[in-house]
Amino acid sequence: MSASIVGLGQTEFSKNAGRSETRLAAEAILAALADAGLTVADVDGLVSYTIDPVEETELVRTLGIPAVTWSSRVPYGGGGSQGVIQHAAAAVSYGAARTVIAYRACKTRSATRYGSADVRPASSGHGGTTATQWCLPYGVLTPASWMSLNATRYMHDHGVTSADFGRAVVQLRDYAATNPNAHFHGRPITLDDHQSSRWIAEPAIRLFDCCQETDGAVALVITAADRAADTPQPIDIVAAVAAAPFEEEVATNHYTADLAVMGSTRLMAQRLFERTPRDDVDVAMIYDAFTPMLFMQLEALGFCGPGEAKDFVADGNLGPAGRLPTNTNGGLIGEGYIHGLNLTGEAVRQLRGASVNQIPDARTAVVSAGRTGLLLRRP
Amino acid sequence: MSASIVGLGQTEFSKNAGRSETRLAAEAILAALADAGLTVADVDGLVSYTIDPVEETELVRTLGIPAVTWSSRVPYGGGGSQGVIQHAAAAVSYGAARTVIAYRACKTRSATRYGSADVRPASSGHGGTTATQWCLPYGVLTPASWMSLNATRYMHDHGVTSADFGRAVVQLRDYAATNPNAHFHGRPITLDDHQSSRWIAEPAIRLFDCCQETDGAVALVITAADRAADTPQPIDIVAAVAAAPFEEEVATNHYTADLAVMGSTRLMAQRLFERTPRDDVDVAMIYDAFTPMLFMQLEALGFCGPGEAKDFVADGNLGPAGRLPTNTNGGLIGEGYIHGLNLTGEAVRQLRGASVNQIPDARTAVVSAGRTGLLLRRP
Repeated sequence: MSASIVGLGQTEFSKNAGRSETRLAAEAILAALADAGLTVADVDGLVSYTIDPVEETELVRTLGIPAVTWSSRVPYGGGGSQGVIQHAAAAVSYGAARTVIAYRACKTRSATRYGSADVRPASSGHGGTTATQWCLPYGVLTPASWMSLNATRYMHDHGVTSADFGRAVVQLRDYAATNPNAHFHGRPITLDDHQSSRWIAEPAIRLFDCCQETDGAVALVITAADRAADTPQPIDIVAAVAAAPFEEEVATNHYTADLAVMGSTRLMAQRLFERTPRDDVDVAMIYDAFTPMLFMQLEALGFCGPGEAKDFVADGNLGPAGRLPTNTNGGLIGEGYIHGLNLTGEAVRQLRGASVNQIPDARTAVVSAGRTGLLLRRP
Repeated sequence: MSASIVGLGQTEFSKNAGRSETRLAAEAILAALADAGLTVADVDGLVSYTIDPVEETELVRTLGIPAVTWSSRVPYGGGGSQGVIQHAAAAVSYGAARTVIAYRACKTRSATRYGSADVRPASSGHGGTTATQWCLPYGVLTPASWMSLNATRYMHDHGVTSADFGRAVVQLRDYAATNPNAHFHGRPITLDDHQSSRWIAEPAIRLFDCCQETDGAVALVITAADRAADTPQPIDIVAAVAAAPFEEEVATNHYTADLAVMGSTRLMAQRLFERTPRDDVDVAMIYDAFTPMLFMQLEALGFCGPGEAKDFVADGNLGPAGRLPTNTNGGLIGEGYIHGLNLTGEAVRQLRGASVNQIPDARTAVVSAGRTGLLLRRP
């Protein structure tokens, strides 16, 4: 039985939500159910991230869900983010549940700041970052610094400059500027602005290359395709896949044969595009925690060859009239960082024709979070 | 596509393993793969508990798994334990993976002692025990004390005594006595021994009513049924279900309408026995963290009516010649506590005809962990 995304809900995205993650999750879920024309009484499955702080029993109490027959958590943080849709689709396929909620609620600014140095011991939340313990003593302390090692190698191999990254950011900020939910609503930038922003991890990552630490929640409702037909705006899950080759670790991957290649995304894309040509894709959502990851995923996904992302971007292909309009909500850099799940939401909006930066007649969307990804289609 | 358990492996069970949980997991997994006639190269899915300390990236490195295309974690600790088989079966059913490992590695004695008072803040590991924060200030500090409130109500409602519980424990210890892997190997007890053991939580739980804090690991290999046919000893997963009605929390459930009833197990059993009569069951594995839970599950599973467990047990029905031979490895009380997954292992052994306490011609087994459960069958 194939599955569909039938509901989407979210809170406002802010720097200080002023309420608990459990409440944020509940608000997003109620909005998603209303959007689907369903109620809490329909829910029988719950999926989130291992590192999401919401305790499921508390969420069930808060919402009054009558019974839960599927519960799962996806490891690997943002890299695993699209795994929540894979889990939900599998639960529906197996008959374990009929209406599954996938959610993420976080306060990555007002609670645990995700941009800060993380010196907690490893092996706590299944974030897939155990290798950080080998880097921490050398000052590789923050997500930006983890990524900068890979990015620096990528820049070296292909002659990519910070200005190349900047051209993508200008586009993301253009999208964000027209999105009222975006942190950078009404605040587009020029390439000069990008190049004037301070270094976070020289020579790869400037301030404007970084995603936003954000408080908020996103929830999606997934049902079996037969039930989806009774909902107002279903979107089909054509494929929901995960892939991690040996020694591929999401954010702290410094042990692979080629640091300049996202091997997990390559393998993930093989599975994603098994039966669908890449040319079918009308719009893309690509995990942009930092700009270099966006470039490396464009290549690993097969939308351009190794080292070609800089020209692909410079030619305007991420824009509304380009070959691959990308992160039309402004991305994690421009809209906010609900750990990747707000990208899934924007894909759904595009396929419904409801984005503020709508791509005309968008019918097929790809979502990539590095090691997990989706292919979604308007029925 | 239905799924089968095709491999089983475990470490020794001890009070001090003297090595890491990651190594314990790896040892159990290698044993399970050898048992299935498969290799690490076949593995593409990994499932464990949210509170399992093994970081998946470390496990992949340790074993050399070529690529992982399904990763999931089951919340709710031991109550959720059989959910790992549900996840694995769903992953196979959805085509997300072909060979999934379900594992649990723990050192509940030499590392975090599970019988000790837990005063950590809630909402950390998705253990499903957030409500404990309301009980802690009143001295309800340990798993035994959590359960004793429900058990005391159960005893009051149905006139159950500690000696009634003791009769079940004598049987569990008889099974353990002949099991070389059991903590209580060679150490059967009498009812007097049970009644002389000290109170842990009067009037419900004596020392001998408690499961063993144990170091060790168990791993199972799950594949699609078509691939299973090529393995030496496949066991079919007839049903793998989870169920939690509103306000049902595994171990700290003091907020339900009737404390003496395990409502999650009732709902779980409805789903488990949808197409299979209970009379088909030849052998049962029932989560016996503490003896009263075993009684309450016997009733909630529908093997006897409310309050009838004490007579069911007194009549010898848990024994080798009884109507429902139960926990033939000695259970969590007699063998050890790998958080419920060693019960799954014993079910597999029974259906293969390989238990040290083999029930003749056992063809169908039920496994209950309160809110998750399995129905397994020899093909």
